[in-house]
Amino acid sequence: MTYVRNCWYVAAWDSDLAQLQPVPMRILDERVVLWRDADGQVHALEDRCVHRHAPLSLGRCEGINLRCMYHGLLFSPEGQVLEIPGQDKVPPQARVRAYPVVVRHSWVWVWMGDPALADASLVPPAVGFDDDRFILGHGHLDYAAEARLICDNLLDFSHLTFVHAASFQAGPSFAERLPDITPLERGVRVSRWSQNAPDIRDPNSADRFDNYMTYDFLLPGVLLMEAASFASGTAEALDFGPPDFDTAVTGRNFTSQAVTPMSGDTARYFFSWGPHCGHGDAAMRDGMMKIAAMAFGEDKVMIEAQSRVIAESPERPIMPTAHDRAVTLFNRLVASLCRAERGQRHGSSLQGAAPSSAVQFEGDKIAFR
Amino acid sequence: MTYVRNCWYVAAWDSDLAQLQPVPMRILDERVVLWRDADGQVHALEDRCVHRHAPLSLGRCEGINLRCMYHGLLFSPEGQVLEIPGQDKVPPQARVRAYPVVVRHSWVWVWMGDPALADASLVPPAVGFDDDRFILGHGHLDYAAEARLICDNLLDFSHLTFVHAASFQAGPSFAERLPDITPLERGVRVSRWSQNAPDIRDPNSADRFDNYMTYDFLLPGVLLMEAASFASGTAEALDFGPPDFDTAVTGRNFTSQAVTPMSGDTARYFFSWGPHCGHGDAAMRDGMMKIAAMAFGEDKVMIEAQSRVIAESPERPIMPTAHDRAVTLFNRLVASLCRAERGQRHGSSLQGAAPSSAVQFEGDKIAFR
Amino acid sequence: MTYVRNCWYVAAWDSDLAQLQPVPMRILDERVVLWRDADGQVHALEDRCVHRHAPLSLGRCEGINLRCMYHGLLFSPEGQVLEIPGQDKVPPQARVRAYPVVVRHSWVWVWMGDPALADASLVPPAVGFDDDRFILGHGHLDYAAEARLICDNLLDFSHLTFVHAASFQAGPSFAERLPDITPLERGVRVSRWSQNAPDIRDPNSADRFDNYMTYDFLLPGVLLMEAASFASGTAEALDFGPPDFDTAVTGRNFTSQAVTPMSGDTARYFFSWGPHCGHGDAAMRDGMMKIAAMAFGEDKVMIEAQSRVIAESPERPIMPTAHDRAVTLFNRLVASLCRAERGQRHGSSLQGAAPSSAVQFEGDKIAFR
Repeated sequence: MTYVRNCWYVAAWDSDLAQLQPVPMRILDERVVLWRDADGQVHALEDRCVHRHAPLSLGRCEGINLRCMYHGLLFSPEGQVLEIPGQDKVPPQARVRAYPVVVRHSWVWVWMGDPALADASLVPPAVGFDDDRFILGHGHLDYAAEARLICDNLLDFSHLTFVHAASFQAGPSFAERLPDITPLERGVRVSRWSQNAPDIRDPNSADRFDNYMTYDFLLPGVLLMEAASFASGTAEALDFGPPDFDTAVTGRNFTSQAVTPMSGDTARYFFSWGPHCGHGDAAMRDGMMKIAAMAFGEDKVMIEAQSRVIAESPERPIMPTAHDRAVTLFNRLVASLCRAERGQRHGSSLQGAAPSSAVQFEGDKIAFR
Repeated sequence: MTYVRNCWYVAAWDSDLAQLQPVPMRILDERVVLWRDADGQVHALEDRCVHRHAPLSLGRCEGINLRCMYHGLLFSPEGQVLEIPGQDKVPPQARVRAYPVVVRHSWVWVWMGDPALADASLVPPAVGFDDDRFILGHGHLDYAAEARLICDNLLDFSHLTFVHAASFQAGPSFAERLPDITPLERGVRVSRWSQNAPDIRDPNSADRFDNYMTYDFLLPGVLLMEAASFASGTAEALDFGPPDFDTAVTGRNFTSQAVTPMSGDTARYFFSWGPHCGHGDAAMRDGMMKIAAMAFGEDKVMIEAQSRVIAESPERPIMPTAHDRAVTLFNRLVASLCRAERGQRHGSSLQGAAPSSAVQFEGDKIAFR
Repeated sequence: MTYVRNCWYVAAWDSDLAQLQPVPMRILDERVVLWRDADGQVHALEDRCVHRHAPLSLGRCEGINLRCMYHGLLFSPEGQVLEIPGQDKVPPQARVRAYPVVVRHSWVWVWMGDPALADASLVPPAVGFDDDRFILGHGHLDYAAEARLICDNLLDFSHLTFVHAASFQAGPSFAERLPDITPLERGVRVSRWSQNAPDIRDPNSADRFDNYMTYDFLLPGVLLMEAASFASGTAEALDFGPPDFDTAVTGRNFTSQAVTPMSGDTARYFFSWGPHCGHGDAAMRDGMMKIAAMAFGEDKVMIEAQSRVIAESPERPIMPTAHDRAVTLFNRLVASLCRAERGQRHGSSLQGAAPSSAVQFEGDKIAFR
């Protein structure tokens, strides 16, 4: 697995963490136990007792602490052992790793890198349930596939034409045009106009719209997308630049999605989606969630199958296409940051290492090297 | 896995390949997608898109071509990419491996070796449903065991006495006598007379027959067997030579069987069986298929159990018996052809390499070395 | 796996071995077939035919012998092949390993080491169903965990307070006090008094008892425990020494338990439990078996979870606590005997090798090194 460690990873939906009930999670192949203490604070520790390695997620919450229920060692939220039954003294080295935690935008975020570098301002600006502009449904899906493959999928929406022909009904032309790609400091922005599109909510209508969708795909694997339909002609009037979403005519919606690597071949995919409060209601949200369930199931079938093929011959090269520009930019960013992190851990910086991908983008052209 | 590559492997029953519905198969641990195109032709490609390795078997048939349904690359039956959505040019190296295919005797045969050597005359002379001499039922069974173990099983029918005591009712004497073994250019012939046998279809009858069965076991793992009951005394009259099956009194039947290695520990076993049209009808065929289902299930239990034992200590030597003569001849043929193929691939011939088996046959005697 | 080989391992409940029905078992990762012959004798052979490695446990008992039902080889209880169908002579090297067997105390014991060293006097003094002092129920449970982890569990009853809070109701004080630990030649004795305890069978009663429990944990993983309630004051009167169980007031009971390593990550746990005939009846035994089923299920959840954690990072050190004294003594004994056995097999003795554990006990104190 090649993932940036100094990042906030989504570990759970805030609402899925009941008070005083420890929950096991796996992030970057590390076992993590999460619990919400008696005061409502959420904590994350390495899910392995120092004594005989029983999982603390089978433990019992006591106040703000967590007790291992094999032989009774009591852990503080900082990972320090406070009590060992049958023993007067607790050796100071009796501690497990504690992970920084932030609860924000309805998600529990865990910092997997150097705790000294944990910076809450790096939490991506997802839209949570506390944002009353949008009426959101949510869920999660577990994948038997590496997170990177799901990120690749989300970075190239040309698959909508093929994988989601039945659910999202994107149509053939969607895959024929390339979106606008903008590199960001911690991700990539992908935007596209579709002109003179029919009303997908009312196929019999003669009305036509200029549809716009834009998403930021941010480290470590967070997609934040807004989309809406505008009056026909808006795209040209704006010279295909970004619109003011408040001028949207209909169909304005927002989705927050996060891909969390569990092990080298499993991942958890968190998602919310729903209409803007001025463009829909709870019934529309429920309809959208049904479409999402169908579509995300289509992704899962394809990506898990792809994962099994890759697992059999991981050495076989891929052949990127023009639609892979955002994929390549993002993966190059990840590779670059991972090299920097490795350099920091080794006490030196790696310089001049070539990107692993053999593809280079020159302007809008793709060059196979 | 040690299997001859320059061979036709049974990939499917012809009747199981619906038009325009791609089907995944695995042969010699290679992923193969099969499809019957709009013209009825069957094609076989490597089941892995050049782009991001999605399986083409999740794709969509379009005319004679196959489209990957992840990002829409279109493949010709020759494996060449014809279209990449969003991209004007298709790089010439964008292609996957295509396998020669022959549909014959109701089976779809795929050539796994050098396509330049594919020779349809090497397809074994199985009996298909288009041969109106026989009334055939058919099926297939998947094994969690290496194909070689199933071939070994089919090359030594002495197991009928033990594995199939309940189904085929071969009786103890069957295992006590050795059959006649004849080496063939691409296999082994196994024949045997059983004299003065009762009528297995009518155990109360006083009638006695001389039963004859003969099968060719051919590369890569195809068993073609004819059997029948003759008038008592026929065996001696023929000096135990082969009879003319047209003189059979009763019970004439034919079975075609093929063992296809999928992975190193899985295989698919294809089989048909049924009476000669002069010796039975559809009802008899159905009764025979019930016995076959029982018997082949007995084989599966034994061989999968054997496979699990071998997997735990593959280095332990076997101890061949007198009944293993056909097994040894066939495996020696396979080993010899595999060495020759390796030599061709390496641009040189391997000479003087000793057979891996420590058993040698001298005339009819078996020598443990 | 590090286990002493020159030991009697429990392979089955005597009552689970029906006559003439071979049963497969795995001990120390070796496949063993057990069968009770026509005379009632129990035998154990390597469960792998010399011919093509079919499991003999799929075979057929014939008198005192066992026939492989793949190609009919017949094996004597000593492992010698007696018949090979189709072959006049049987090569003398045609034999499989035979294991010494003793049936005693309702268990079938198999000697996994050098047969020449098999010594029936080393069978631990378990209590079988033929001992009419106790009214015993019994069962077994299969673990997806290494036997050693179950042994560790049984050597440290402080887990009763946590794992079995609901079932055995040991209470917090149980884990706070250390038991008396006595090294034995082939194991460890663990004993403890609990003073002024309420009657667990009648919580409303004002009666108070001094409870005593003592168990020997013996190679290779056999726990033999007796427990009872005595008149309040008995513990002090005996200066906390062992009581005469015949003076017990109530609650006298006995349990025999055995942990058999199957593979490196599976084990079978055999157990019996029940009241002394003077302190209970079949109804009490059935009630105790219900509690045992609940409690042993609690152990299984914890130990299998622990096993999965350890499997992911087996190199991580454990941190023993004061309660681990019996665990450490027993594992040190096992390590020492294993070194001696390796020395014998290598024709030399290993001297001066340090114990693998970094913990040393000095008197009653535990020292972290």
